[in-house]
Amino acid sequence: MIRSKIIGTGAYIPTEVIANHCFLNSDFFTDDGSKIEQSTETIIRKFKAITGIEQRRYARQGISASDMGAFAAEEAIKRSGIDRESIDLIIVAHNYGEMDHPGAPRDMVPSVASRIKNKLEIQSTSCIPYDIIFGCPGWVQGLIQADMAIRCGDVRTCLVIGTDTLSRVLDSSDRDSMIFSDGAGACIVQADNSSSSGIINTAVRSDTGIELDYIISAGENSGAVEEPRFIKMKGRKVYEYALKYVPQAMKECFDRSGEDIHDLKMIFLHQANDKMDEAIVKRFFELYDIAELPENVMPMNISHMGNSSVATIPTLLHQVMNKEIGDFKVNKGDLIMFASVGAGMNINAITYRW
Amino acid sequence: MIRSKIIGTGAYIPTEVIANHCFLNSDFFTDDGSKIEQSTETIIRKFKAITGIEQRRYARQGISASDMGAFAAEEAIKRSGIDRESIDLIIVAHNYGEMDHPGAPRDMVPSVASRIKNKLEIQSTSCIPYDIIFGCPGWVQGLIQADMAIRCGDVRTCLVIGTDTLSRVLDSSDRDSMIFSDGAGACIVQADNSSSSGIINTAVRSDTGIELDYIISAGENSGAVEEPRFIKMKGRKVYEYALKYVPQAMKECFDRSGEDIHDLKMIFLHQANDKMDEAIVKRFFELYDIAELPENVMPMNISHMGNSSVATIPTLLHQVMNKEIGDFKVNKGDLIMFASVGAGMNINAITYRW
Repeated sequence: MIRSKIIGTGAYIPTEVIANHCFLNSDFFTDDGSKIEQSTETIIRKFKAITGIEQRRYARQGISASDMGAFAAEEAIKRSGIDRESIDLIIVAHNYGEMDHPGAPRDMVPSVASRIKNKLEIQSTSCIPYDIIFGCPGWVQGLIQADMAIRCGDVRTCLVIGTDTLSRVLDSSDRDSMIFSDGAGACIVQADNSSSSGIINTAVRSDTGIELDYIISAGENSGAVEEPRFIKMKGRKVYEYALKYVPQAMKECFDRSGEDIHDLKMIFLHQANDKMDEAIVKRFFELYDIAELPENVMPMNISHMGNSSVATIPTLLHQVMNKEIGDFKVNKGDLIMFASVGAGMNINAITYRW
Repeated sequence: MIRSKIIGTGAYIPTEVIANHCFLNSDFFTDDGSKIEQSTETIIRKFKAITGIEQRRYARQGISASDMGAFAAEEAIKRSGIDRESIDLIIVAHNYGEMDHPGAPRDMVPSVASRIKNKLEIQSTSCIPYDIIFGCPGWVQGLIQADMAIRCGDVRTCLVIGTDTLSRVLDSSDRDSMIFSDGAGACIVQADNSSSSGIINTAVRSDTGIELDYIISAGENSGAVEEPRFIKMKGRKVYEYALKYVPQAMKECFDRSGEDIHDLKMIFLHQANDKMDEAIVKRFFELYDIAELPENVMPMNISHMGNSSVATIPTLLHQVMNKEIGDFKVNKGDLIMFASVGAGMNINAITYRW
């Protein structure tokens, strides 16, 4: 049986560290255009209590989505030990394409994946690069697509990248702008039929009724810019949606794996919001009548990394591999899960044996 | 053996007919910013002689990429006779996302595919919509991805759409702006293991060295707008590249199908440029020592449709199915090919038995 196995990870952590106090001079407005009466200091304190975010990272000027993606990919290639010319497929998940600066056109001609292949100096004409757009769960979806391509026998080695420069689509008059961050993560995934390591199974869910408007592009809350240049989120709606459906989709995925829930070692969840992520994992275990979260089941990096969209999970995975997240450690044979939720709305999950 | 079979096609033809004479008041500049000395009338006459384009279609204001895609999809669903709730996958190829008007942000949050699923009022949460970015060959690549998903057994019914509003990324000071057009095409492709109809095999090629810059986004030739808002093409380079590699990729694809070249009935080629398309097909047959083009092998619609990027091939296929392109007719059992080339640079081809 062919399994799709992650054999190397990489991440690019942007160099500009933006602490919460950097927002102290901001004026925040609600989405109906009225100024929020609380002091900015209070808003920031409450923001930190809910999201857990203390700082986030922005790419410095001159560093684009394809630059970050190429940096992360370089590391994944190096870690995997493969010859880069053996890569069959480069899948790049993003949501805003290549943006030179805030307000710049979101450029995808040529695709971000083609640009990354160029930056990696891969010569092979049978290495096929393409971009996918799937909201924040784009990187997990890229992994699911790589898995399909591997299982159908067409390809052997894939490079899956998530990269986004959300700092270039922020409305500074919107509290939610403090959530978002820049970054890129990558992995090499390869066909393996000699071990039990790899993707066991996957699940995906899409809701496009009223949920279509939960995460969109729109103008500034302050009204200063009306063009839909900025990422906008109906926080309460997203929270309710995620809490209702993510644990359920994860359970559906895990149940079909045929594994025992007590063997699940770790969950790599999209770093959206501290409180929300905790609530999701708690509810997931409750669906198995497990009231208390197992120890060290849920690595988090959101407090110092923010929410970097498609980059959160591969970055977190890479950091755990590097033993950079406390005591978290994945050992060979460990059963883990990936799960994400975002614009669309889309949800996806993967059961994986390391 | 599971085959991926096209069981319904659809297209949306925008209503605004833009004839060549509409450009008579234009001032054209070269890409180094110097005004072209020839009269605009002469430029247009030469343009027509080379590209074969007499008119093109623009979407009227208020019609977006997802609107056009949904119109085309509605028709494909109707023609296929399927229940829309049985669709497992919606793959949407585009290059500029959702644009409200020229200069508007290229919006993909949520994805164009999610928007189309919403417009089609599909309720199924296991119908998964995503966008791919792959230059003009995006629709053919979507079909290749649908085929992989079908062959690996994960999905049964896919909706593959190509939709782009190139009229919103045109530099009116660039002669090449006369090439481009808006449009959308779609098909329903379904798993079939009871007939010999369907995709036989595929081939894809990517060149991302110096070729990366052949089709890009850049500012206006006139210098009036410097932001990279406009589609820009190194026409001569694209022509040389396409002529060198497209026939070769098509031959590689066709040869691996194991079929006899004399049985090939029709080639659906990306409608890029009359002269270029003719030269490609001529050279393809020359690779088989066939000096004269077989009769009715190459349907074309570029003279009155222009180059609508990802939409050209599914639109042309739909028009041939509707018997709208002269005597061209595809019968059950006919061996046909799809082939495309575009930004990246990317080339792809499919051998298909109708």
